[in-house]
Amino acid sequence: MVTNKVFNYGKKFKLESGKSLSEIQLYYTTYGKLNADKSNVIWICHAFSGNSDFTEWWGGLFGERKLYDPEKYFVVCVNMLGGCYGSTGPLSENPETKKPYFHDFPLLTNKDLVNSYKLVRDHLKIGRIHTVIGCSMGGQQAVEWAVDEPGLFDHLVAIGANAKHSPWAIAFNETQRMAIAADQTWKAYKDNAGMEGMKAARAIGLLSYRNYVCYEAKQHEITDEIYDDFKASSYQNYQGIKMQKRFNAFSYWIISKAMDSQNVGRGRGSLEKALKRIKAKSLFLGIDNDILFPTVEQKFLAKNVHGAVYEEIDSYYGHDGFLLEFEKLTVAINNFYANSLATKKSA
Amino acid sequence: MVTNKVFNYGKKFKLESGKSLSEIQLYYTTYGKLNADKSNVIWICHAFSGNSDFTEWWGGLFGERKLYDPEKYFVVCVNMLGGCYGSTGPLSENPETKKPYFHDFPLLTNKDLVNSYKLVRDHLKIGRIHTVIGCSMGGQQAVEWAVDEPGLFDHLVAIGANAKHSPWAIAFNETQRMAIAADQTWKAYKDNAGMEGMKAARAIGLLSYRNYVCYEAKQHEITDEIYDDFKASSYQNYQGIKMQKRFNAFSYWIISKAMDSQNVGRGRGSLEKALKRIKAKSLFLGIDNDILFPTVEQKFLAKNVHGAVYEEIDSYYGHDGFLLEFEKLTVAINNFYANSLATKKSA
Repeated sequence: MVTNKVFNYGKKFKLESGKSLSEIQLYYTTYGKLNADKSNVIWICHAFSGNSDFTEWWGGLFGERKLYDPEKYFVVCVNMLGGCYGSTGPLSENPETKKPYFHDFPLLTNKDLVNSYKLVRDHLKIGRIHTVIGCSMGGQQAVEWAVDEPGLFDHLVAIGANAKHSPWAIAFNETQRMAIAADQTWKAYKDNAGMEGMKAARAIGLLSYRNYVCYEAKQHEITDEIYDDFKASSYQNYQGIKMQKRFNAFSYWIISKAMDSQNVGRGRGSLEKALKRIKAKSLFLGIDNDILFPTVEQKFLAKNVHGAVYEEIDSYYGHDGFLLEFEKLTVAINNFYANSLATKKSA
Repeated sequence: MVTNKVFNYGKKFKLESGKSLSEIQLYYTTYGKLNADKSNVIWICHAFSGNSDFTEWWGGLFGERKLYDPEKYFVVCVNMLGGCYGSTGPLSENPETKKPYFHDFPLLTNKDLVNSYKLVRDHLKIGRIHTVIGCSMGGQQAVEWAVDEPGLFDHLVAIGANAKHSPWAIAFNETQRMAIAADQTWKAYKDNAGMEGMKAARAIGLLSYRNYVCYEAKQHEITDEIYDDFKASSYQNYQGIKMQKRFNAFSYWIISKAMDSQNVGRGRGSLEKALKRIKAKSLFLGIDNDILFPTVEQKFLAKNVHGAVYEEIDSYYGHDGFLLEFEKLTVAINNFYANSLATKKSA
């Protein structure tokens, strides 16, 4: 059974931009029990539109007799600030104005998000983390945190992640924000501002999470005798509408900006110098056919982190493979732990 | 010197959908002179947002001492129906209502566009075409036409083209239309309806015309010390605004739908049966790193067209390589003609 809790931080939370949030709420999920020597913590950083309850979207990895069994591990995941799943976000009330933040919610970076996780870690009195694991934007944060607090982690597992967001991926995010901005309702101070734009934005995102082969397999037509109303078109609309039912355009905007901010080299001399700080035994998993976070990025991480392992998962889903290829992820991560243990023993 | 002319077809122009346009205007460009035996015609089918004056966008291939020299060839290109460069389109006056068509402009398919080209061909009294050449959507039409009138063409050169539009590429186009539809002004009966949406749509298209490597090369940052306002973001907006200055959302919608319609197998049994009809000596050029019309599609064409040649051009621009890699295109097409001539002599 997962437990969902709220941690209220009543003080000013300073941001990388120099701005601050006057107080924040952090919604988090735990699973399993912290053991006596506090050595069994698995910390998950969730992806772009995810929530803290990882059993909803990563149930294939977390559960009884799964890769991470709650009998053995204490698992924690905090909902990202700026989102809409319980932590302070643009629809929350700004304590200073007593109105929702909406467009005035400040810019967040992945460094800010990691700093928010530290508050929950301190609150839970966790001084050591067995493994920090994240995929996609969550993987970005896992890498950023492992650079920022090298002594904290025994292991780092980052899937479809990067050290610095690429111009290509930033262009994808910017284009999604352009679609939101093209919706004239986006200017309104309303919860549902920009929702038609966000529908298109999600459809753009989806293209980057998948690829040619995946659409060919899943959205092909069974007849040659049509010239309009294709399955692929319906699918884009369907996915856009699904997102409208669970997200808002303000969070979409803020979190995509935080993803763009990823650069562990910022303030640390260079990417290479930053990555040299990592002490965790590190596994960087790439997914072939990932067009958004291509494997060149995980190979770069593995090359620059001392003793790191690079592994590749085969998936025609592309980037979305991290949410779907549970068996392959389990095998790769189990192998990593086994080899990591063997190295330790022989050392 | 190019010559621009207008051909008015005063009769009903029937469409594949069963609908019709009550009369149409076709704007076309010619270059060079038709020779005595009318054997020197090069017919260009232009791409998505192109116009009939190919010297503006394909000047690297057409001109004195270029691949196609006007001293030697008579080159023709007709602006696509549905567009905004002189041929009848959604902003044209509907003769039946005396008002612009706007949203009521009928759905066009690539077959309809090819049928419109036939009207100009008849008007120019051309009974034989040395080469039909097209890139991207123009390449789709070149293939469709070569299937439809196999006896007409000596050569077919299709670059970054396909026999059937893929679910992936349809999803890209649909997402662009979703961005237009997200703009509330799109519902208006005005020339500039949906323009903010079209700005985002163009930015989406651009992602599909390029790729990761190209953005990395052209849009990378020179400092690690920033977390917002990236070059890649400015670039997406810049390209969207550029498109707003030269196009309209109605044409964008109609022409992208025509691109989606590509399936030379429709009404002809199958793709393979249709492609078997082609008699032209055919060259299918693929561009490596083309994520929109990947090389698997041009290889499929070459495999199914009798005696066809497949060649691949190396370009980090991806799909947009067809507008930029003039030297490589010239070499590949010249080789094709030389080999084609050698085969003819030895036969």
